[in-house]
Amino acid sequence: MLEFNDLADCSAEQIDALLTLARRLDTAPEPRALEGKVLALLFLSPSLRTLASFQAAMVRLGGGAFVISPDMSIHGLETRGGIVMDGVAAEHIKEAVPVIDSYGDALGIRAFAKRRNLDDDLADTEFKALADLASGPVINMESAINHPCQSLADWKTMDDLGVPKRGRFVLSWAYHPRALPLAVPSATVHMAAMRGMDVVVHRPPGFELPPSIMDKARQAAAESGGSISETEDRREATEGADIIYAKSWSSTQRYGDDQADQKLREDLIGRCVDENYFDNAKETSRFMHCLPVRRGVVVADQVLDGPRSVVIQEARNRMVVQMAVLHQVMKGSG
Amino acid sequence: MLEFNDLADCSAEQIDALLTLARRLDTAPEPRALEGKVLALLFLSPSLRTLASFQAAMVRLGGGAFVISPDMSIHGLETRGGIVMDGVAAEHIKEAVPVIDSYGDALGIRAFAKRRNLDDDLADTEFKALADLASGPVINMESAINHPCQSLADWKTMDDLGVPKRGRFVLSWAYHPRALPLAVPSATVHMAAMRGMDVVVHRPPGFELPPSIMDKARQAAAESGGSISETEDRREATEGADIIYAKSWSSTQRYGDDQADQKLREDLIGRCVDENYFDNAKETSRFMHCLPVRRGVVVADQVLDGPRSVVIQEARNRMVVQMAVLHQVMKGSG
Amino acid sequence: MLEFNDLADCSAEQIDALLTLARRLDTAPEPRALEGKVLALLFLSPSLRTLASFQAAMVRLGGGAFVISPDMSIHGLETRGGIVMDGVAAEHIKEAVPVIDSYGDALGIRAFAKRRNLDDDLADTEFKALADLASGPVINMESAINHPCQSLADWKTMDDLGVPKRGRFVLSWAYHPRALPLAVPSATVHMAAMRGMDVVVHRPPGFELPPSIMDKARQAAAESGGSISETEDRREATEGADIIYAKSWSSTQRYGDDQADQKLREDLIGRCVDENYFDNAKETSRFMHCLPVRRGVVVADQVLDGPRSVVIQEARNRMVVQMAVLHQVMKGSG
Repeated sequence: MLEFNDLADCSAEQIDALLTLARRLDTAPEPRALEGKVLALLFLSPSLRTLASFQAAMVRLGGGAFVISPDMSIHGLETRGGIVMDGVAAEHIKEAVPVIDSYGDALGIRAFAKRRNLDDDLADTEFKALADLASGPVINMESAINHPCQSLADWKTMDDLGVPKRGRFVLSWAYHPRALPLAVPSATVHMAAMRGMDVVVHRPPGFELPPSIMDKARQAAAESGGSISETEDRREATEGADIIYAKSWSSTQRYGDDQADQKLREDLIGRCVDENYFDNAKETSRFMHCLPVRRGVVVADQVLDGPRSVVIQEARNRMVVQMAVLHQVMKGSG
Repeated sequence: MLEFNDLADCSAEQIDALLTLARRLDTAPEPRALEGKVLALLFLSPSLRTLASFQAAMVRLGGGAFVISPDMSIHGLETRGGIVMDGVAAEHIKEAVPVIDSYGDALGIRAFAKRRNLDDDLADTEFKALADLASGPVINMESAINHPCQSLADWKTMDDLGVPKRGRFVLSWAYHPRALPLAVPSATVHMAAMRGMDVVVHRPPGFELPPSIMDKARQAAAESGGSISETEDRREATEGADIIYAKSWSSTQRYGDDQADQKLREDLIGRCVDENYFDNAKETSRFMHCLPVRRGVVVADQVLDGPRSVVIQEARNRMVVQMAVLHQVMKGSG
Repeated sequence: MLEFNDLADCSAEQIDALLTLARRLDTAPEPRALEGKVLALLFLSPSLRTLASFQAAMVRLGGGAFVISPDMSIHGLETRGGIVMDGVAAEHIKEAVPVIDSYGDALGIRAFAKRRNLDDDLADTEFKALADLASGPVINMESAINHPCQSLADWKTMDDLGVPKRGRFVLSWAYHPRALPLAVPSATVHMAAMRGMDVVVHRPPGFELPPSIMDKARQAAAESGGSISETEDRREATEGADIIYAKSWSSTQRYGDDQADQKLREDLIGRCVDENYFDNAKETSRFMHCLPVRRGVVVADQVLDGPRSVVIQEARNRMVVQMAVLHQVMKGSG
C-alpha cells in the first residue's frame, strides 16, 4: 500500500484485512513493529484528534512522528506556481513537502477545502498537488473532499457495535454557525454505502451533496448491495434507522460564497439532532459524529451525553485503525 | 496507583517507595520499561519544565508522549455545562478530555487556578471536573491548589542533599508583579510537613494561607512528627533554617480581585529573598524555588547564582520523580 | 565529542569518520542505538528542516526529542544579566537553559544573529553564552555565525554526487527582500575550503564577507590544498564551476542598519541565480542552497526545478549527518 487517500481505492477485502489488523494490534500490541520508523505529519489545517491519534499510534508501534505546521514558528508556505516570492512567505511547498517527506517513512497531510471553487475541491486539487510532491507513501489526514481515516474508524465502530451490514444509515444535516467543508459527509456516505448499508442523506434544499459524490456512493452501493437515497423529510429519513450521523456542511448551491451560504443557513438555526430524531429509529439506534461537535447547536446534550452516543468510541478507533494503516504502509503487512 | 493528584493520597511508605524507584531509574535506566506506552498531556496553562520533563521521562522509559494545548492550532475548548456553542469554541471538554484520554495509557492535566472564587480553587473544582472525564489514570501537572510532581521533586532534592527530616523549612513570601496561584505554596507546606519538618510560613498580613490548607499541613505534621507555624517576622522565621523556599502568591483576603491584590502588594515591592535572609539560618542552609523565578524581584542574583541555590537540582528531579510515577502508573510497579 | 559547534573544531579525519558513520546509519539502520536517550531542542529562532530532521534522527536511532521554544505557550525568556525582572519575561535563560539541558543527553540550540553589532555576531557571543549554561554536550543548530549541521550535510551531498575534492565551488550572492544573517555563507566558504575546493565568493560591493571569516576559510584552504578568492564578476566566478551555491546575506558595511542595507540592496533587485549562471560552468555543475529559498527572487524556477538542483538531497542529508553527530555525541562512537 503506497497511499491511503480514499476508501474507494480499497477492495472490501482490503478493508476487512485492515480492520482485522487493527483489532489485532489493539488487543495484542506490537511495540517494536515500527522501531526506528518515522511518520512525517504536515498540518495545513487545525487538528486535535488527528494530531494526537497519529502520534499515539506511532508510539504504540515503537516508532515516532514529527509535526510541521505553518502555525508553528516557521516561515509561511507559498503554494502558487510561477510566482516571484518577494512577499511574506519564505518557503514554497515545492521544497517544503519533498523535504518533510524525505525525513519520514510515510507522510500524513491535512489540507482542508479552500472553499473557493467547488470543482477544485471535488477534484481534491490541492491535496493531490501536495501528495504529488512526495515520493514515499502519503496518508490523507483530511483533504477538501475526503477523510478516509475517519471513515475507516466509523466503519470499525459500527462493526464493534454489531450494527448490521444492511442496516439503515442516516446522514443528517445540522445547523452550524460556520460554512463547513464537504469532506466528512462525502467520505461518510461512500463508506456507509461501501459497507452495504441503506444510506439516507437527510438535508434541506440547497444542501444537496454534489452529483459526483452521490454517484460515487451509488456505485459503491451497487457493488456492496446497499442503497443511496435523499430526502428533506426527517421522519421519512429516520424511520427504522440504525445510525443517525449528524454533520453540518456548507451549501453546494452557493459554494464558497460565505454570505449567501449564511443567508441560506439562517432559516435553519435550531436544526439540531435531539431525542425526537430517534422517535421512529430502531431501539438500538446510535448517534455518531466525527467531532468536534457543537453542543446545543449540532446535537443536543441529552443525545450526546446519553447511551446512544458513540462519538468517543469513534474517536478512539481513529488511533486503532491508523495503527493498521501505518503498519501496512511502513511494514508492508497485509 | 490510578492517579497522582495529591501527596496526601500517599502514605509515607508509598512516598519512600516512589523515591526509591526514582533513584533506581536514574542510576539504572530501564529504556524498555514502557515500550509502546503513551502519555497524553493536556496543557490548559503554560509550561516549560513540565512540558519538557514529562516528554523526556517517557522517552527514557521507552514510550512516548503527545501534547495537546488550546494554544496550538486547535479549536478553542468550551468548559461550561449546558451551553449552546454558537460562539468561537468548536469543541467541549466533555468530548476533548475523553478523546485525548482514550489515546493514552495515562493522562497528565495542567489547569491553573481561575482565581475567581477561593472556595472553587481550594476544592480544585476545575481540575476534578477535567479528571472525572478521564477513564484511565490521571496525573496532576499543577492544578488550582496542588502540584504533587513539584512537591515530590522537592522532597527528593532535600533527601539527595541530606537535609534532616526534622530540619527547619521556611516558606517565605516574596513580591511578584502579578497575583499568583496558591498551588505551589499549598502543596509545599503540606509536603514539608509530611516529611516531618518544622515548617514556618513567613508572610505579610493579608497573605495568610487559607485555613483549610494550614489544617491539612498541620494534620500531616501531626502524623509525621513535624510542626507548622506562621509568622510575619523574618528573623524569627529564618532562625536556624535548613531551607528557605521563596514563593509569591496572591492575597487570600482579596482573592480574585487583582486590583485590590495589587494595592496590597504595592507596599511590599522590594520584598526579595537576598543574602540577609540567610544571616541567622544554618550554615548549610539552602535556597529553593519551583521556577520560573524572577531575578531581582523574588530572589537576588547573588542567592540564585550562589552555592546555596538548588533550583536546577529541583527542576531535574521533576523528570526523575515523574519517571517513577509513570512507571508505577503504567507498569503497575510499586 | 562534547559539542558540535564548528567544523573547524574537527580534523579532516574526524569529518571523514562522521560521514562514514552517517552513510552506515543510512543504509544499515540502528533503531536501538540511542534507546532511552533524549535530545533537548531549544529554538530561539524559527525552523522547519532543523526541527523535523533532529526529531526524525532521534526516532531512527531509537531515542526521542522534546522541543522548547518561546513561541510556545511559555513565559518569555530574559537574556540580559543583572536585571530586575519586573516586566513581561517570567524566566531567565540562566535557569531555562540548565533546566532544559538537565532533561537531555545533549542539547541543540538555535539562536540566529541579533544583527546589532558585527563583532558580537562574529564572536558568536549569544550562542556561546547559551552553550556555556549547559553542562552536557551542545549541538549548534545555527548560531549568529555558524551552521555546522548544514555544512556537514552539504559536504556529504557533494561526496554523494562525486563532486571532486579539488572542484570549483562558487558562493554567489543573490537578492532577498530581507537582510539575512552571515551564518550560512560563513560556514559554507569554510566547509568548501576545508574540503579542499577552489572557493570563489561572488558578491557585489558592500557585501564582502568579513575579513575574519575569509581568513578562517583561507587557513582551512591552506591545510587542505584548496584556495579562496573573491570577485564581483559573475562570468569570472562561474567559469568552470562544479557548484553554484546561491545565498543572500546582509551588507557587512552597514551591518545591523536595515534601512541602509535595504538601500544598498535596492540596486541589486533581480540578482537571481538563473540558467545564465551555468553558461560557462562545468556541464556536470550543480545548484545548491540551504533552504528555505525564495523562488523567482534568489533562484529561478527553471534552475530549482531542473536537473542541476540538489537542494532536496542537501536537506535530506541534514537528517543523515545529524544521526552520525547524535550517535557520536550520545553513544560515544568514533
